[in-house]
Amino acid sequence: MTLLAVGTVAFDTIETPTSRRDRILGGSATFFSIAASLFTNVRLVGMVGKDWPVAYSDLLESRGIDLQGLLVHPFLDTYFWHGRYTQDLQDRETLAFEMNGFDQFDPVLPDGFRDSRDVFLGAACPAVQLKTLAQCTKPRWVVADTVDAWIETTRNDLQTLLKQIDCLLINDSEVRQLSGIHNLVGAGKWLLTQGPSMVIIKKGEHGSIFLDKQSVVPFPAFPCENVVDPTGAGDSFAGGMMGYLANQENIERNTILRAIQIGTIVASFTLEDFSIDGLLRVSNLDVEQRLHDFSRTLP
Amino acid sequence: MTLLAVGTVAFDTIETPTSRRDRILGGSATFFSIAASLFTNVRLVGMVGKDWPVAYSDLLESRGIDLQGLLVHPFLDTYFWHGRYTQDLQDRETLAFEMNGFDQFDPVLPDGFRDSRDVFLGAACPAVQLKTLAQCTKPRWVVADTVDAWIETTRNDLQTLLKQIDCLLINDSEVRQLSGIHNLVGAGKWLLTQGPSMVIIKKGEHGSIFLDKQSVVPFPAFPCENVVDPTGAGDSFAGGMMGYLANQENIERNTILRAIQIGTIVASFTLEDFSIDGLLRVSNLDVEQRLHDFSRTLP
Repeated sequence: MTLLAVGTVAFDTIETPTSRRDRILGGSATFFSIAASLFTNVRLVGMVGKDWPVAYSDLLESRGIDLQGLLVHPFLDTYFWHGRYTQDLQDRETLAFEMNGFDQFDPVLPDGFRDSRDVFLGAACPAVQLKTLAQCTKPRWVVADTVDAWIETTRNDLQTLLKQIDCLLINDSEVRQLSGIHNLVGAGKWLLTQGPSMVIIKKGEHGSIFLDKQSVVPFPAFPCENVVDPTGAGDSFAGGMMGYLANQENIERNTILRAIQIGTIVASFTLEDFSIDGLLRVSNLDVEQRLHDFSRTLP
Repeated sequence: MTLLAVGTVAFDTIETPTSRRDRILGGSATFFSIAASLFTNVRLVGMVGKDWPVAYSDLLESRGIDLQGLLVHPFLDTYFWHGRYTQDLQDRETLAFEMNGFDQFDPVLPDGFRDSRDVFLGAACPAVQLKTLAQCTKPRWVVADTVDAWIETTRNDLQTLLKQIDCLLINDSEVRQLSGIHNLVGAGKWLLTQGPSMVIIKKGEHGSIFLDKQSVVPFPAFPCENVVDPTGAGDSFAGGMMGYLANQENIERNTILRAIQIGTIVASFTLEDFSIDGLLRVSNLDVEQRLHDFSRTLP
């Protein structure tokens, strides 16, 4: 029942083909935690800076997110990312990026966090992910995410991390980069030889592919007509999936497949607005309803 | 129980990143008919030229494909396409193209073909598609495919065609081109206002989306590890779908959704070899088996 998340808590400036938002709330741990909070309480580990408004802490805490592990740095600023999406909202380029010490972040888990049962290591320097995991005393299920920058610059740490996790979340271009294999099934199967017993390849609007030793299971995405801002969809997927699983006594294959469906639905709400606004409007019941409609239409 | 297909019967020269095949059997009506012949007899309407080997006619006829509607032109050559796939097998460019009179093809349906119950209008000049359809006396279900070239050059004819069909098959980039709408759900819904009561958007390795007035249903593709040549996968999908449906008394939504799953599986065999070779190796039982495995892994 205890779910730990480490990752970025950030400010994002987002440009889409039709709109722009400046310094809105973002970050992998943020999206993950808000999404997971639909189902369970979350213990958040991360770092923000002197520009962090107390109101945001209040917001997260109001969702049952425990911020004992959120370091507020006294003189650095909060992690910042400025991105611009392409016309089709499928790709994005980074226009500016201020890590503000996050790569040096030395996560210290509050004592009460160390016994967390499930652990999400959001996309961050693998060193930060490894340091966090090392402080967990009895993790049941460890899921890590990564992004291209870490595959490029810290591949060795990443390979070490792979041996210590149960499930890797990775997107299609990144799994190709990491494995050197273009075919996604082939790339995913290669990853299964590197440590994790499960791999989930995220394909954005095309859904995802789950792989374990026994099977390869493709999932379509929820068909969204109104995509506003894809930022955070992957972390919302992870949050929905792990938030649901946190309440399940056994992590079995069928439970995980169900959890992936739930993550898919939760992510679909994130896409429909900027920042966490789509998620905030949603109740557990809305998720159930959309999931029901989606499952009903599936043959 | 009667299924008519009109489209190209062609020779293809195919270059993939690792291989090349010269003047192998291809064409929309070919792939469609071979795929559909797993389930039903097919009446083929098309045109080939003086270079057409009798052995190919024998092959098609051995699959229960009725070639009374196949015109063998006495002095033109057979439709020819030479394409090269990109490294990832997702895109292709046309290196050479010889229509050899196919755009002037004046299809004449043999008397025995006119009462065909289901009709597939493979990607061809809309004029040829319209002329074929006009000779059908009592079609139950008419499905048409199209490609970018016809959207560009014969949009008016295509709009006329849309008003006379039940279902349009179209790929993702083409539905965007035709509708001017980037979002696939939006583009598909627009198409539903133009005539057809159903639209199937083909997304290649990412599966497909079915739309009708009531719903939007996404389908993942079968996750193929060994993709050799994608040529003909879309037509094999259509053939598997319509071949299965030809045996069904009622064309209901659930039957169509089931048929789409079957088409998905049939297409996955086409990808695994050049030309129709992957399809020829497959029995009805192999399709059932892969469908069963695929459905079983789906949550």
